[in-house]
Amino acid sequence: MSAYPPRLRGVVAPVSTPFNADLSPAAPRFIQHCRSLLGQGAGLAVFGTTSEANSLTVNEKHALLDALLDAGLPPQMMMPGTGTCALPDTIELTRHAVASGCAGVLMLPPFYYKGVSDEGLFRSYARVIEGVADPRLRIYLYHIPPVAQVSISLPLISRLLKAFPGIIAGIKDSSGDWNNTAAMLDEFRAQEFDVFCGSESFLLQTLRGGGAGCITATANVNAAAIARLCAQWQTADADAQQVALNRLRGVFQKLPMIAALKAALAWKSGDETWSIVRPPLVELGQVPRTQLEADLTAIGFELAGAAADSQR
Amino acid sequence: MSAYPPRLRGVVAPVSTPFNADLSPAAPRFIQHCRSLLGQGAGLAVFGTTSEANSLTVNEKHALLDALLDAGLPPQMMMPGTGTCALPDTIELTRHAVASGCAGVLMLPPFYYKGVSDEGLFRSYARVIEGVADPRLRIYLYHIPPVAQVSISLPLISRLLKAFPGIIAGIKDSSGDWNNTAAMLDEFRAQEFDVFCGSESFLLQTLRGGGAGCITATANVNAAAIARLCAQWQTADADAQQVALNRLRGVFQKLPMIAALKAALAWKSGDETWSIVRPPLVELGQVPRTQLEADLTAIGFELAGAAADSQR
Repeated sequence: MSAYPPRLRGVVAPVSTPFNADLSPAAPRFIQHCRSLLGQGAGLAVFGTTSEANSLTVNEKHALLDALLDAGLPPQMMMPGTGTCALPDTIELTRHAVASGCAGVLMLPPFYYKGVSDEGLFRSYARVIEGVADPRLRIYLYHIPPVAQVSISLPLISRLLKAFPGIIAGIKDSSGDWNNTAAMLDEFRAQEFDVFCGSESFLLQTLRGGGAGCITATANVNAAAIARLCAQWQTADADAQQVALNRLRGVFQKLPMIAALKAALAWKSGDETWSIVRPPLVELGQVPRTQLEADLTAIGFELAGAAADSQR
Repeated sequence: MSAYPPRLRGVVAPVSTPFNADLSPAAPRFIQHCRSLLGQGAGLAVFGTTSEANSLTVNEKHALLDALLDAGLPPQMMMPGTGTCALPDTIELTRHAVASGCAGVLMLPPFYYKGVSDEGLFRSYARVIEGVADPRLRIYLYHIPPVAQVSISLPLISRLLKAFPGIIAGIKDSSGDWNNTAAMLDEFRAQEFDVFCGSESFLLQTLRGGGAGCITATANVNAAAIARLCAQWQTADADAQQVALNRLRGVFQKLPMIAALKAALAWKSGDETWSIVRPPLVELGQVPRTQLEADLTAIGFELAGAAADSQR
């Protein structure tokens, strides 16, 4: 089994994608940020929702992943997002991730059509699996109904697990509904199916329920603390750590998350280009930005790692 | 102004995309179907929602458009859908359509993120217009909130028209809400802004209100009759024609529209491969298919043009 990287556990960051002023992806800053996150103990879910992945072309995603690999970052710590609306694109992105030795892929269902059937979603995943045709493939399903508006139901997961054991490796549950996460933990307990919550607000509950960890936007600014709770969740200090995580999460949660995270990275790194987002998103306005900085200062927020390093 | 094709009016078909058994696009059947629709007096909104356009890659769309042009079909009758989630893809598709001499493009807003601001959508369209940088560009905005879940508001249209007069050419309103279509007709009456309803159910109202026509899924099977009402809407027979259009629409509207249209094309052409859809869509099941055929027979439905020709 040595050809298979070990499964990712703990905290995984949907890595914010830095852009240049002309909106092209900024590979050097991307590498630096990923290296910092790894140093804090996080895995790398590059090309997630927080990464503005669907605002990137297939070739831009290929180039960014290759830039990380060329820089020597370990693919066994990576779980790139590869789900798109068009199955051939999903197959191409997934094939490249698997061939590169990535630990797994995080796969949105096709998300343009709404109200699609479980049968249609099953066929979508089946088609990708057959198209990639590589036993090293490990798919983490990506359930994010508030954004994708296309859900991954428990019966669909059951059917996929039965049809593709070993390949269907887990799920990121970004429903924001703990009952849904709990139901997944409960129903698939006996199987090798790793449940990640989509927010560290549910981290302790998820770990206590047998889950694998969390894949969470705020890992971009708080990976070390989240990783610490992943390591220490069975200690007496765990509940206090969860409270501290919630406090930081709360500051970002009331703002447009993606832009707010980039504003924090810009503020702490002193590199204002970090604040750039691609349309249709817009950067954080000056008023909420000032408030964000005040709120973060009030809770004693320190950004660990490379973004902060570059300020020095 | 001879470099600019005349504006499309009347009925425009979001052309169903035929697939082969391996789910690859079937260019020869696509050409044949487009030729039939043109022969019935319809324009070609290739790569619309009905076309499963977002289930196609950028390269597949390029290849299909090129196949039509190579077959000698007139670009001045075409309005390809070019809106995707990633602005560089939208720019590339749009640039190709404009360079090919297409009458216009039908442009979805980026649709992955929900709850985005008008500012973000304005920047998206502005970015594409600046990226394409061609005065021949004519954009028809594509408002289809039930599917895209991202809306194009009246204030956004006003702002775009002011910033890019001549380039913002019109809209397809697939809200299904006549009040919204009426408000657009009313508010932009004084400007060169062509309003197309997204269903022929609203065709007569739209034309009487000064609109340009309709871009409607069912044009794939009923283009000639819809084109006839577009030509004869000021005659005494218009209301009776609208009733007849509604009758056919009603048969399809109660079914999954895209699969039902393909089932009808398969049935009437005798070419069963027409029924194939790409996941996440699924083809019409046998029971609804039998009912569809019975319903269509009951209202005396005849498919005009090439798909029917190939049966003979």
